[in-house]
Amino acid sequence: MNTPAEVRAAIRAGAFDGPTAALAPGFTQANLVVLPEADAFDFLRFCVANPRPCPVLEVLDPGAVEPVFSAPGADLRTDVPRYLIHRDGEVVDEVASVSWRPDLVAFLIGCSFTFERALLAAGLPVRHIEQGVNVPMYRTAVACRPAGRFSGPLVVSMRPMTPSDAIRATQITSRYPGVHGAPVHVGDPSVLGIASLGSPQYGDPVEIRDGEVPVFWACGVTPQAVAAASRPELMITHAPGHMFVTDVPDESLAIG
Amino acid sequence: MNTPAEVRAAIRAGAFDGPTAALAPGFTQANLVVLPEADAFDFLRFCVANPRPCPVLEVLDPGAVEPVFSAPGADLRTDVPRYLIHRDGEVVDEVASVSWRPDLVAFLIGCSFTFERALLAAGLPVRHIEQGVNVPMYRTAVACRPAGRFSGPLVVSMRPMTPSDAIRATQITSRYPGVHGAPVHVGDPSVLGIASLGSPQYGDPVEIRDGEVPVFWACGVTPQAVAAASRPELMITHAPGHMFVTDVPDESLAIG
Repeated sequence: MNTPAEVRAAIRAGAFDGPTAALAPGFTQANLVVLPEADAFDFLRFCVANPRPCPVLEVLDPGAVEPVFSAPGADLRTDVPRYLIHRDGEVVDEVASVSWRPDLVAFLIGCSFTFERALLAAGLPVRHIEQGVNVPMYRTAVACRPAGRFSGPLVVSMRPMTPSDAIRATQITSRYPGVHGAPVHVGDPSVLGIASLGSPQYGDPVEIRDGEVPVFWACGVTPQAVAAASRPELMITHAPGHMFVTDVPDESLAIG
Repeated sequence: MNTPAEVRAAIRAGAFDGPTAALAPGFTQANLVVLPEADAFDFLRFCVANPRPCPVLEVLDPGAVEPVFSAPGADLRTDVPRYLIHRDGEVVDEVASVSWRPDLVAFLIGCSFTFERALLAAGLPVRHIEQGVNVPMYRTAVACRPAGRFSGPLVVSMRPMTPSDAIRATQITSRYPGVHGAPVHVGDPSVLGIASLGSPQYGDPVEIRDGEVPVFWACGVTPQAVAAASRPELMITHAPGHMFVTDVPDESLAIG
């Protein structure tokens, strides 16, 4: 189960339903957002206005379930390990597959797994991988730029590093604007309105060692926090960590 | 007439209606596309699928004429020197101001003027500026990725350089993905389906000197070629070279 197509086939067959980190190494994984067409233009405007948390990899035609650009042959109804169903901004169900309607529009949004591989390749620490837990994610007091009916807070992920490693990580992730790009903040978490690094709103806390500072990146879970704030009638997403595996090579997203 | 607001005020007052190159140095200029809301979602999907020719700077609310992000206080009905009215894909009028409807959606798209300043600052030649003419632009045989009702050819701009200058220009423009980014091609124009460098479809031909190669960048005139191919009932654009001047500093678009 090493190629993207093999991973998706195993998920589709019900043989795998776990987190996708480290699967199909070298290929981009994506956040999923599905909305009725009536909300889709507002949401795409929201993504374009907030490219750091919501870098768009692909938008499907209304009703379509096959991402012809990023994963030809895949089926977004079955090929994500776990889906969350949000109604009026609340998660009402977690399921292994979803039914579709002709008016549903699917958005695939870049994921930090791509730049984490580049950080590891450069010898930089990625603490949540070292500790075998999910990355810590925090709902901030920073408002995204609103667009139409969508507004809400920026969600960030955090990786602790020494200042010199943070500088190198800034250089490396700057090459990947399609998967959140450079950090949005380094240092004092209260600047972002984060009260406690030990209590992330999503994922798990990680150890911060002497001499390390927290480094924050915009996070693809932002649309889920925006759903909670903006209360669309229906939104379908992946469950955090349970991503859609595409055929897009990580390196094709690098610039510079 | 040096600040963006002063340039826009002069245009609005009818005191200036020429090309905007070199006005308000240091501030980003933008390509304008206006479409009815019924076509707006398809067009934004087209832009997201083709970020090299169509890097989106701002999308306004339906009916809105003030770009609150990139130029607060401006008015898109009056602040562009010349507008083209396209009906069914044909240019039917060129005007100094436009009326608006509640269903019109305005898109501002990044312009190569931003990266040309960076090239000049690095001592690289920008031949059309040296010669005092408009940049040569070519309709290629390369198809953009279609989205909904929009499809059509990629348009590119061309700047001749020595190979070593082309390498440096690639580095520099890679830092500006929001204004077309790195070149799409260097060398043989027939690879792009361009028959004659001396006969650009838009703009003016420029001299190519011994030892120079043509360097091609994706161009913000692409939506006008896409309109000709896709024939939307109504599209309003700027006239080539007569751009919308924003308050966004060029350097705020640089990464890395």
